[in-house]
Amino acid sequence: MVLPFDILEYHHRLKQTKERMADKGIEVLLITDPANMNYLSGYDAWSFYVHQMLVIIIDEPQPLWIGRYQDANGARATTWIYDENVIAYPDYFVHSDTYHPMDFIGEILTQIGQGNRSVGVEMDHYYFTGMALERLKKGLPNATFKDATLLVNYVRIVKSDQEIEYMRRAAQIADLAMTKGVESIYPGVRECDTAAEIYYHMVKGTPDYGGEYPAIVPLLPTGDHTSIPHLTWTDRPFVEGNAVIIELAGCYKRYHVPLARTVSIGPANDKLKQVAPVVLEGIQNVLDTAKPGVTCGELEEVWRKSILKHGYEKEARLGYSVGLNYPPDWGEHTASIRKGDRTVLEPNMTFHLIPALWFDTDGIEISETFRVTDTGSERFTTYPQELIVRDHMDLSGQIS
Amino acid sequence: MVLPFDILEYHHRLKQTKERMADKGIEVLLITDPANMNYLSGYDAWSFYVHQMLVIIIDEPQPLWIGRYQDANGARATTWIYDENVIAYPDYFVHSDTYHPMDFIGEILTQIGQGNRSVGVEMDHYYFTGMALERLKKGLPNATFKDATLLVNYVRIVKSDQEIEYMRRAAQIADLAMTKGVESIYPGVRECDTAAEIYYHMVKGTPDYGGEYPAIVPLLPTGDHTSIPHLTWTDRPFVEGNAVIIELAGCYKRYHVPLARTVSIGPANDKLKQVAPVVLEGIQNVLDTAKPGVTCGELEEVWRKSILKHGYEKEARLGYSVGLNYPPDWGEHTASIRKGDRTVLEPNMTFHLIPALWFDTDGIEISETFRVTDTGSERFTTYPQELIVRDHMDLSGQIS
Repeated sequence: MVLPFDILEYHHRLKQTKERMADKGIEVLLITDPANMNYLSGYDAWSFYVHQMLVIIIDEPQPLWIGRYQDANGARATTWIYDENVIAYPDYFVHSDTYHPMDFIGEILTQIGQGNRSVGVEMDHYYFTGMALERLKKGLPNATFKDATLLVNYVRIVKSDQEIEYMRRAAQIADLAMTKGVESIYPGVRECDTAAEIYYHMVKGTPDYGGEYPAIVPLLPTGDHTSIPHLTWTDRPFVEGNAVIIELAGCYKRYHVPLARTVSIGPANDKLKQVAPVVLEGIQNVLDTAKPGVTCGELEEVWRKSILKHGYEKEARLGYSVGLNYPPDWGEHTASIRKGDRTVLEPNMTFHLIPALWFDTDGIEISETFRVTDTGSERFTTYPQELIVRDHMDLSGQIS
Repeated sequence: MVLPFDILEYHHRLKQTKERMADKGIEVLLITDPANMNYLSGYDAWSFYVHQMLVIIIDEPQPLWIGRYQDANGARATTWIYDENVIAYPDYFVHSDTYHPMDFIGEILTQIGQGNRSVGVEMDHYYFTGMALERLKKGLPNATFKDATLLVNYVRIVKSDQEIEYMRRAAQIADLAMTKGVESIYPGVRECDTAAEIYYHMVKGTPDYGGEYPAIVPLLPTGDHTSIPHLTWTDRPFVEGNAVIIELAGCYKRYHVPLARTVSIGPANDKLKQVAPVVLEGIQNVLDTAKPGVTCGELEEVWRKSILKHGYEKEARLGYSVGLNYPPDWGEHTASIRKGDRTVLEPNMTFHLIPALWFDTDGIEISETFRVTDTGSERFTTYPQELIVRDHMDLSGQIS
């Protein structure tokens, strides 16, 4: 087995997690977020559709993995956890109206003497359901429950050099997928045809590094859907005169580098020509400002003033911390680049800056994923930072 | 806007849901499962990474959609809900440590006079977190909470003819993706190269029907990973003499038809040659038995006896109800083909029958998705039901 990180890096992550547990008075941390399970143990499998958990006990050196019987081999294959710390529940606990995996887990925790301790749970994380909470509380009547939402995520916010290296590889894949996706766009080509091109290159990756599934599917709203950011592709053909917003991510070892561009099919309309320079100037101003010591809120202010100069305002946040993740989101849910966010930038924090402007019937998105360096910031991808115009020179009659 | 189903079909689904609500004494049903939101309203967007909800009030004709501001256009674009029933929360509720969308939702429900009623929540569904439950309870102190887990899923278990038609289209895509995926496998080709081929065709679909993202990524464990069903692909090359298990699904209008096959890279080893006929015979016996009036548990018994004759036993369930879904699972979590499941088969129930056999270091999976007909069962896909052998005739030196 080859882990994606040195064992010392996992130990360091675990140590930082335990320090935060101690700060919050948590003795036993029940981690159900797949990204946090991966971050601390290496565990990587599409098994988060059943209940599973990594248990961190503050005075034990090793985590416990508890999951479904048929996934235990996966825990042995992908983690640094000793085999005896991999605990499996039988298959009759899966999607049953009688048995619940959290009953099993409560019993295990009681058996190993953790039933009367202070227990942290990831209250607002995906895959930790209301039922999971209630069954755990019932199974551990002598435990004190504490909210550990984002506890591990805040450890993840500053990346190691190895994590940055994986994001660089993800960035190469993002550049490749964007290049191929944009090249596939002609009037008459269907949205699904372009989505297929993007997926092909995202997954195949480069000759050196294979790609992985991103935590969000590629989004490519077109026409009046460009004002609706989260609709997925259809099988309608692209229409000359419309725009397409492509948002995708390269993914390597579960690390994401997202990238968004707006593409005009045929010559750009006046609206796009007018707003694109405003967005590009705003992005440049934010990237020029980002450096250690500056807050996320200050970055938002720079953007707000930059676009207000041209008469524009934006309601949604501009960006968020990004890196390791699983569906349904590549964001880390910690720092947001928005008004009032007091997160202070540190070297090796990584953000997806996506200052979209949406109007009633259309919109524009141009994004960059960047790293905070010792003295400023640097982009991960190299794809041209501009409004992409697929003008008549490109329309070689390649209609599907 | 073109909805995937006739408005009368949505009305019928809503009526059946309200009947179940009445049976359980639920007056207000809060639906957070993306598949159930889609089933009742048409809503289809990759927005389930933030809290959102469809509210069914037993004495109101229209559901309410409540979600993020930037997704409200999507609700207007993809549902049959009147615009005034689309309610949006501001962006500062997103991934905030101060504001929670369920506070907003509790307030809305109180304002419209639903705060003191019997409220059903999908306690054990993805995306309904422990925190969501607690904040809702706090926001609706005069409501009585009831568990509505799987309430809508049990409405979904019998498909309409239009749903079956969409599954037939998904099946064509599954056949295509399997064909192209298998054809891409040679020694030296990387797992990610084959995953890319599969994704390309799954998403592109046929000339008539574009494909969509499946709720589970294609899985293709190879070598010693064939005993570990939920690991995803890597960038390691395939090795002659190993097997690959491909599990994928075609997806159309969010309806899935999964399909699994085992592929031998080079001549099949003795183990595979020995177990493949056992699995195929078992599948045939199950399909021959499936018809209205038979229970899921009886299907399991047929399989168990069929393989026991050859000296094999299997721990995990054999299959499950399948259809409409979103990540992370295409299963519907209602009926399982396993020991003791008393679900009685009805026409237009649809199942993924995947009687995998896993051993210590390898395994075999051959699956079929089938529909219960008036008198028996029928497969959705046409891909040859056999152990696939990529023998030397195929190894044309096409090494990546």
